[in-house]
Amino acid sequence: MTDLLDVQAMARWIQRDGAESILRGMTDYVEADYRRWERFDKTPRVASHTPFGVIELMPTSDGELYSFKFVNGHPMNPARGFQTVTAFGALADVDNGYPIFLAEMTLLTALRTAATSAMVARRLARKDSRVSAMIGSGSQSEFQALAMRAVLGIEDLRIFDVDPGAMEKMRRNLEPLGFRIHQAASTRDAVQGADIVTTCTADKAQATILTDDMIAPGMHINAIGGDCPGKTELDAAILDRGPVFVEFAPQTRIEGEIQQKPADFPVVEMHEVLSGAHPGRSSADEVTIFDSVGFAVSDFSGLRFARDANLGTDLMGQVDLVADPEDPKDLFSLISVMSPVG
Amino acid sequence: MTDLLDVQAMARWIQRDGAESILRGMTDYVEADYRRWERFDKTPRVASHTPFGVIELMPTSDGELYSFKFVNGHPMNPARGFQTVTAFGALADVDNGYPIFLAEMTLLTALRTAATSAMVARRLARKDSRVSAMIGSGSQSEFQALAMRAVLGIEDLRIFDVDPGAMEKMRRNLEPLGFRIHQAASTRDAVQGADIVTTCTADKAQATILTDDMIAPGMHINAIGGDCPGKTELDAAILDRGPVFVEFAPQTRIEGEIQQKPADFPVVEMHEVLSGAHPGRSSADEVTIFDSVGFAVSDFSGLRFARDANLGTDLMGQVDLVADPEDPKDLFSLISVMSPVG
Repeated sequence: MTDLLDVQAMARWIQRDGAESILRGMTDYVEADYRRWERFDKTPRVASHTPFGVIELMPTSDGELYSFKFVNGHPMNPARGFQTVTAFGALADVDNGYPIFLAEMTLLTALRTAATSAMVARRLARKDSRVSAMIGSGSQSEFQALAMRAVLGIEDLRIFDVDPGAMEKMRRNLEPLGFRIHQAASTRDAVQGADIVTTCTADKAQATILTDDMIAPGMHINAIGGDCPGKTELDAAILDRGPVFVEFAPQTRIEGEIQQKPADFPVVEMHEVLSGAHPGRSSADEVTIFDSVGFAVSDFSGLRFARDANLGTDLMGQVDLVADPEDPKDLFSLISVMSPVG
Repeated sequence: MTDLLDVQAMARWIQRDGAESILRGMTDYVEADYRRWERFDKTPRVASHTPFGVIELMPTSDGELYSFKFVNGHPMNPARGFQTVTAFGALADVDNGYPIFLAEMTLLTALRTAATSAMVARRLARKDSRVSAMIGSGSQSEFQALAMRAVLGIEDLRIFDVDPGAMEKMRRNLEPLGFRIHQAASTRDAVQGADIVTTCTADKAQATILTDDMIAPGMHINAIGGDCPGKTELDAAILDRGPVFVEFAPQTRIEGEIQQKPADFPVVEMHEVLSGAHPGRSSADEVTIFDSVGFAVSDFSGLRFARDANLGTDLMGQVDLVADPEDPKDLFSLISVMSPVG
């Protein structure tokens, strides 16, 4: 039997333990896994593109556990009543290859994306950061806000979305939780005075959500929406304003903001900052840019955290995915019990 | 909700409809999909190798449905009481990216592998083939035998395995179903007089199960066990005895018997035979060789057949893998119902 955390169980877990508590713990798991970067089998995700969107598989392994995620990205989905991104995935035991944990990962992807952003901002944003600008009020936005509060203590949000209804929804979800929210009139207005600027928009197009003149010295930019070929959010000039940090360079060069730059454009992989090989932010005036596309190691961390947190609890279900005959060479016995016997 | 066929349901389906009836139907599905080869998004599988074995992801899509399989291969597993190969997989709707069907695929892989072998043998083996030699009596063996009977009418088996217990198990499973079985003393003995020779052994090594001098004119060789880098079953000289047919050349060059040959060794992809672009067998004396490694399009066909056969029946279960908030931009609503409201 394979342990299962389905949508209901994942939602009840987040309600039970609290999103911020989970995000704090998951941020530490993500950091711990990025710290042992060289242990992981890393490969750019395998994407199947269509005119409507993309379906991707994201595998990785640390030699003891193997994880993969199935995830789609369909920017036109919300207009038709579907989620832009849905996902599920699994952990397997490398020793015998058996899947040991299957989980919904739409909620878990939102959590691990926010935890990764927080892990990076904790290292790169100015320590005195107090105000966060958030461009895009879709499914990821509340999770990003909660992670930045859980890990960095940020409660002042300046938000903007081209869809006023989405912005209103974000305010409705976050104000009761104690956030102070300025609903901005434009991206420029939202970014004004922010210490951390998060872009999480979903257009599958080369967009320019942020222009260079909006960026003030000392800002940390958390660009998470530009995450597939042809999909970007930043004015290319912004990428020259300060060091650009990435999860895994070979994947980011295909999918990230740095698509707009030559193949040898210098980037820093985050594990270099965690190990001390790169100093990270060098001054209070420096602009730091996290060109995030989402990487399999963050999924690995998210799955590992969700499993550890729920193992042996009544939220953990089971699914019968592994055929397990008594004699391992006798798979046929599973179907022959009703056959005529000679 | 995503439809689910778990191990129990898959086994009950095979008992209900009968393995041979299913194998006949699935062989036609496999052939239908290989016939529209150019429609598929094809990529070699993504493998994560360790000293113990391999875990692979096998995706494909015809532009309407997307499928992937998670599958391990751990040759030392049976000695420890585990299956060599276990698998599960899913179908997704390309239009919105949602998974629509999740299935155990250990049994289904055995079925689709056998169906693919039968689809190929139906084209390439001599029409008067009556005797089948089977080297390897592991989990795949009974399914291979049933597919060859269901599709080609073959009831005479000459079997050999280095593990006498496995051979005994195969006889015990198949004799009650009406097969005439010669338990051979060696591979050479088993192959003697056979029209079709199937090799399905599991060693993760360059083995030589069949040597060139065992191969008689007119034989069809169905080599399914050599299926990962460094794992082969045939004497390289056999590959010069007649045309070599493959599923998808770029993957077979990495994983198949033709690993032993130069990168430009000529092969015929099976869809070329189905379309008439290649004549297939040219004479009764020709040796034909199917260098099978298992390809994602066969999984696609297997999943499609299993879903079609069980849709709306009481065997089809459901699993809650897709978070589906009422407002698609409000994923957070799934976890905020118990939060304090302002």
